[in-house]
Amino acid sequence: MLYLFELSAVAVCAVTGALEAGRRKLDLFGASVIAFACALGGGTLRDLLLGRLPVFWILEPMYLYVAALTVIATHLVTRRVQISARAFLLPDALGLALFTVIGTQVSLEFRQSVPIAVVMGVVTGVFGGVVRDVLCNEVPVVFRGELYATAALSGAVLFSVLGKAGVPTPYLLPLAVTATFGIRVAALRWKIGLPRIAPPVEI
Amino acid sequence: MLYLFELSAVAVCAVTGALEAGRRKLDLFGASVIAFACALGGGTLRDLLLGRLPVFWILEPMYLYVAALTVIATHLVTRRVQISARAFLLPDALGLALFTVIGTQVSLEFRQSVPIAVVMGVVTGVFGGVVRDVLCNEVPVVFRGELYATAALSGAVLFSVLGKAGVPTPYLLPLAVTATFGIRVAALRWKIGLPRIAPPVEI
Amino acid sequence: MLYLFELSAVAVCAVTGALEAGRRKLDLFGASVIAFACALGGGTLRDLLLGRLPVFWILEPMYLYVAALTVIATHLVTRRVQISARAFLLPDALGLALFTVIGTQVSLEFRQSVPIAVVMGVVTGVFGGVVRDVLCNEVPVVFRGELYATAALSGAVLFSVLGKAGVPTPYLLPLAVTATFGIRVAALRWKIGLPRIAPPVEI
Repeated sequence: MLYLFELSAVAVCAVTGALEAGRRKLDLFGASVIAFACALGGGTLRDLLLGRLPVFWILEPMYLYVAALTVIATHLVTRRVQISARAFLLPDALGLALFTVIGTQVSLEFRQSVPIAVVMGVVTGVFGGVVRDVLCNEVPVVFRGELYATAALSGAVLFSVLGKAGVPTPYLLPLAVTATFGIRVAALRWKIGLPRIAPPVEI
Repeated sequence: MLYLFELSAVAVCAVTGALEAGRRKLDLFGASVIAFACALGGGTLRDLLLGRLPVFWILEPMYLYVAALTVIATHLVTRRVQISARAFLLPDALGLALFTVIGTQVSLEFRQSVPIAVVMGVVTGVFGGVVRDVLCNEVPVVFRGELYATAALSGAVLFSVLGKAGVPTPYLLPLAVTATFGIRVAALRWKIGLPRIAPPVEI
Repeated sequence: MLYLFELSAVAVCAVTGALEAGRRKLDLFGASVIAFACALGGGTLRDLLLGRLPVFWILEPMYLYVAALTVIATHLVTRRVQISARAFLLPDALGLALFTVIGTQVSLEFRQSVPIAVVMGVVTGVFGGVVRDVLCNEVPVVFRGELYATAALSGAVLFSVLGKAGVPTPYLLPLAVTATFGIRVAALRWKIGLPRIAPPVEI
């Protein structure tokens, strides 16, 4: 069940990555790398930092196959049907929520403390998009705009604190996913963002 | 023999990296980092993902020394002789072919399955250039233009499938290197590229 | 004592990262990531390459907390007081010196040879700034301008060669930090840089 959720999160993020690559006029290989970065980049960085190697998609290549098939399907569909970029904001928010919770749980199972599990949850949820934007030569969008990492942080804190308090996973999982998804969607709806740091003065 | 081929691939990629750094007006340290990224970046990412640590150039620093000496030699030569950027397309294609085959073989020896060995071969062949372009603040050229990763993919598939089928390495190695090199050169000659993904519609 | 020095180097680099993020109009999450990249990025890359995993700030989260608190403090202070970007050149040089020496020592303790320890010292000292600039979508400043990596290289060579020669750490540490710091400050004062590589000719 969780595994199917994870695979669908991979597929959703791979679609958004492939569309983003289309916007940058990349070819199918470029689109595949960007899609892999979106779908697998956050979990890959988590595994590297934790020393959980080889990384998850080498141990379980199904993630790789799903991402690759998604890119090909996206290519075939977009040759016939025009897709609005806005249509992916909700699936992207769902992907964020799923990856954050999965990353937090993986880190707790890997015997990390709550603060580290929270950081790793945020890394898993958010860094796919950061790698995508760096590869596309842009300042990552999650560094500004509506709440994104903050939604991941809230979901990761909720999941790990309630988990340590003994709430069983079957209740906790949908709760934390819903909280992350809800905060992200509310931030999009009412344009809620974090404050900025004041720039230094140039002399 | 293979070791000498590998060292010459490192030298070739270090030269192309140093020239690229010259084009961006970087200093000798910047040129060294870009040259190291070109020559060692793909293999480094492969080792990180596989958990084959420390990475290969820490275990065998000769790669590092060859790259460093190449940068200094390039600096001394380019102060006297003007070099055409086009003169490096063929050596670069040879570097791609060598690194791809080496990366595939290393992964098979590290007991990975054929699909993972193929992905790691492509990573080893291609990602040096991706890291170089990210550090130079550009969208990686391998994400568009003539076939590059596709050439690597073909060589890696050929090498690992025929290798699993029992073809001995002394025959397989030159075959896969020639195939990768040939596809890349043919793509350059006849301007063959991959199709693009259609961009999403902005509303 | 060394631990306190290290924590203050983290704080200094986190401040410069947060201010840099302010200049790019990033929000508080973006500023935190840039600050973490500056303060922890070099040591993280060193640990990944060496296979010293999990990385140091997962084993000892105090570094993470100091960086996070520094970002919040910087945010609160810059809302009231305008800070000149030039005021951070000296603390940044101190951070470079401390991280370089720490990175060299960590690598020697991890039983690496002198050349590898020197490379890892430079990586620890310099790559935080490289990651910061890549995330901010700029060509890294350490690839041009006044001596920066060269100062780190000198300090790392001094530390590891004299250390192997038997000079005790309590004398060696301040000596290598002072040398790195002094070279960087002298390069800023007299505008000393490395030569550039001549660019290739486009045809």
